Amino acid sequence: MNTRSDVGLYGLAVMGRNLALNILGHGYSLAVYNDNSERAKELAAHGSSAYPGFSLADTPKDLVASLARPRRLFIMAEAGKCVDEAIDSLLPYLESGDILIDGGNSHYKDTERRGDMLAPKGLHFVGMGVSGDEDGAHKGLSLMPGCDEDVWIELRVLLDAIAAKTAEGVPCTSWMGRGGSGHFVKMVHNSLEYADIELISETYHLLRSFVRMSHDEMRTVFSEWNRGELSSYLIAITADILGVRDEDGEPLLEKVLDRAVQKGTGAWACQAALELGVPVGLLAEAVFARSLSSLKDERVGASAVLGGPKAGSTGERHSIVEDLRKALLAAKVVSYAEGFLLLRKASAEYGWNTDPGKVALAWREGCNIRSGLLDPIAEAFRKEDSLSALILDSHFKAILDQCLPSLRKVTVRAIEQGTPVPAFAAALSFYDGYRATWLPANLVQALRDRFGAHGYERIDRPRGESFHSDWK
Amino acid sequence: MNTRSDVGLYGLAVMGRNLALNILGHGYSLAVYNDNSERAKELAAHGSSAYPGFSLADTPKDLVASLARPRRLFIMAEAGKCVDEAIDSLLPYLESGDILIDGGNSHYKDTERRGDMLAPKGLHFVGMGVSGDEDGAHKGLSLMPGCDEDVWIELRVLLDAIAAKTAEGVPCTSWMGRGGSGHFVKMVHNSLEYADIELISETYHLLRSFVRMSHDEMRTVFSEWNRGELSSYLIAITADILGVRDEDGEPLLEKVLDRAVQKGTGAWACQAALELGVPVGLLAEAVFARSLSSLKDERVGASAVLGGPKAGSTGERHSIVEDLRKALLAAKVVSYAEGFLLLRKASAEYGWNTDPGKVALAWREGCNIRSGLLDPIAEAFRKEDSLSALILDSHFKAILDQCLPSLRKVTVRAIEQGTPVPAFAAALSFYDGYRATWLPANLVQALRDRFGAHGYERIDRPRGESFHSDWK
Repeated sequence: MNTRSDVGLYGLAVMGRNLALNILGHGYSLAVYNDNSERAKELAAHGSSAYPGFSLADTPKDLVASLARPRRLFIMAEAGKCVDEAIDSLLPYLESGDILIDGGNSHYKDTERRGDMLAPKGLHFVGMGVSGDEDGAHKGLSLMPGCDEDVWIELRVLLDAIAAKTAEGVPCTSWMGRGGSGHFVKMVHNSLEYADIELISETYHLLRSFVRMSHDEMRTVFSEWNRGELSSYLIAITADILGVRDEDGEPLLEKVLDRAVQKGTGAWACQAALELGVPVGLLAEAVFARSLSSLKDERVGASAVLGGPKAGSTGERHSIVEDLRKALLAAKVVSYAEGFLLLRKASAEYGWNTDPGKVALAWREGCNIRSGLLDPIAEAFRKEDSLSALILDSHFKAILDQCLPSLRKVTVRAIEQGTPVPAFAAALSFYDGYRATWLPANLVQALRDRFGAHGYERIDRPRGESFHSDWK
Repeated sequence: MNTRSDVGLYGLAVMGRNLALNILGHGYSLAVYNDNSERAKELAAHGSSAYPGFSLADTPKDLVASLARPRRLFIMAEAGKCVDEAIDSLLPYLESGDILIDGGNSHYKDTERRGDMLAPKGLHFVGMGVSGDEDGAHKGLSLMPGCDEDVWIELRVLLDAIAAKTAEGVPCTSWMGRGGSGHFVKMVHNSLEYADIELISETYHLLRSFVRMSHDEMRTVFSEWNRGELSSYLIAITADILGVRDEDGEPLLEKVLDRAVQKGTGAWACQAALELGVPVGLLAEAVFARSLSSLKDERVGASAVLGGPKAGSTGERHSIVEDLRKALLAAKVVSYAEGFLLLRKASAEYGWNTDPGKVALAWREGCNIRSGLLDPIAEAFRKEDSLSALILDSHFKAILDQCLPSLRKVTVRAIEQGTPVPAFAAALSFYDGYRATWLPANLVQALRDRFGAHGYERIDRPRGESFHSDWK
């Protein structure tokens, strides 16, 4: 092949390979470079037979040289210095107008830094969140590109082609905003995935402790829920999991050790929220719950020392299951309210111009948090793009009016019987705090003025005017 | 004066000035450099009359030259690049064996970086947390030095002299461990201060909503509490604040706007906990509560839209006040358990060799979180230095046995009536999670194995052995 390739790809780990097959499958010619030549050759063997547009580059220089201009070059490398190394190795050969797309899990601050570094050279840098499992190569991916809008317009046909599609054929990708917004959106996505999983796990815990349900019964419950408002990939696979049996016929789930892993990246969104001053208590508890679970031996030791009430099952089986469904739905809505509050603040802070409705649309297929809730979220922001919080939208307010009493009831009962429900409890803390005309933060400010002369505002004077008093 | 000064000081903002007066007041000669010459001259005018040992240096070079060797030089500059600039300006004149002490609010990772940079030059770097208000100049400060142990031994007499003293005359300073440990300890201190303040504010909120107490009555309550197990600086000044009246005779606290400020540094400990995988849900909610309070206008708007139960007062005034006392005490114990869990993990991760008991002793006077709880904390770690969590110690277990039911009762009642108690609720989430032999993290792991083939451990196989199943 002497014609130049349409697209370039640097890096062939799991997601890189998915992306490669996806691009090739949509009829684009693709040149690939990978420093692990075994992996490249394996794909070459597979790729060149199935896809005539596939070619392998021996060096970064060859990769760049083999592309049609302006070049469109994906980097799929491990976040951190691998991405910087990839950029450094390509940079000498790139020319003004070329587009470099980092599709890894980079931190948004790194993306901002890299974009600022490349812009003066006339290079366009795209930080793109990419979500999708091993099926993504065939079914398409959720793509979250952050870049200048005109760069996105240039990429749009390509990204639309390789993105996952909704049942109506709408591609799950859109412009997420400028700068590091694409990777920020992916980070919030991951945090919402943590929250979804934690809320489902707390619900599973309460189905066991309140109702003493068998795994088969729970499987039926989650399957039914998946046909209603809670419909989502994670609920569906929870039902699957509950149905799997070990070799001895017992539910396999019962054999899994209750010690969860928290990779650092799952915590990034909460760290950003702490820096930006956005209250995301539920999202944070979802991360902390994993950390606490990992202290398995300490927990077992502490259980012998620390007292508390005993969990007792309840008789009203049907009504409590329905309460749990409503509690899960209400808490899930609150977790998305927190996530979108964080997005809004970051977009304003960094000037990204992120449209939250487009974010929701990009998550509808191809990623782990795909669910029936995303269309109404997109609709809520379409109706009112300045919507300050999701829970103020009429659709979600109606859900909360209907479901919040159940969340309250279930949380109270869990606390009374000593079952930890950190995310449920944090959902109520957020909801009741967000709708509180008054909070005791006046005392916080008075204390700060007392011990540090930090000043305070008054209810009867304009905002921003600072007062100091002798509180002794 | 032609003799060399005992101690040097770079920087004269509020804390620098406090430190200067403190050092001079203890009979040490002190040379000071400050790039804001007005401030330096003001102190010079004050200092040279009162303290013959005071001298002013015109340049960093002069400052270094004026000190007896090995030099002991404090940097009191704003965290971040100001500290790097100060180091850079002094570095050409320092000699092997000199000791540089950063007494500002530096991030512990910066402190680790600076120590590593200076060590090859034979310079000793001390990252020292310093806490104390404007009275600290006279009453002494809580000093939290992190450095090599032999450097601390060299500094000990000086630090003991300028530290705050307990009633028994014990200096509130000790060796916090190696590297960035001193600044890490200060960061945890700040986080515990946030938590103490949030817990007191939630209690104040419930005294108002449950009991409809007047400010004078609440003042009496906090004053009484300050004579018992809750005895602390923050409880004492809360009582003071409740007694202050505005010009119109109304409680001044009622005129303070309920919109609290969260400076980024208050969030550092929670960000570190997220990175290190330590569950600090209560500490995080204390930060998020401030962020939520700052959305005052949104909250007022949301209150008209979002429904919930109405707060109703209760008749059993005396018993509920006692429940609130116990709830506050129990939640405070949990917040310190979280803080010390974070310290333990960081010390292990970074190899600091931090003794948690010495940390507690250093906080007994001079800082905002000074309280009657610190002696028993120090005692708990003295008895068992490998104590995995504070709440397992017999003293604190006894407090929790006595007080936890009240925390549970008060939190349930607050949730039922729609009053947000994020820190109280998070205290229960931690307590009930930490004492849970089983948590639903098995489902978390099964889900992760289902969608990402991340593997899981089994309850009937050795830890670390990873399994993967087809969950479909």
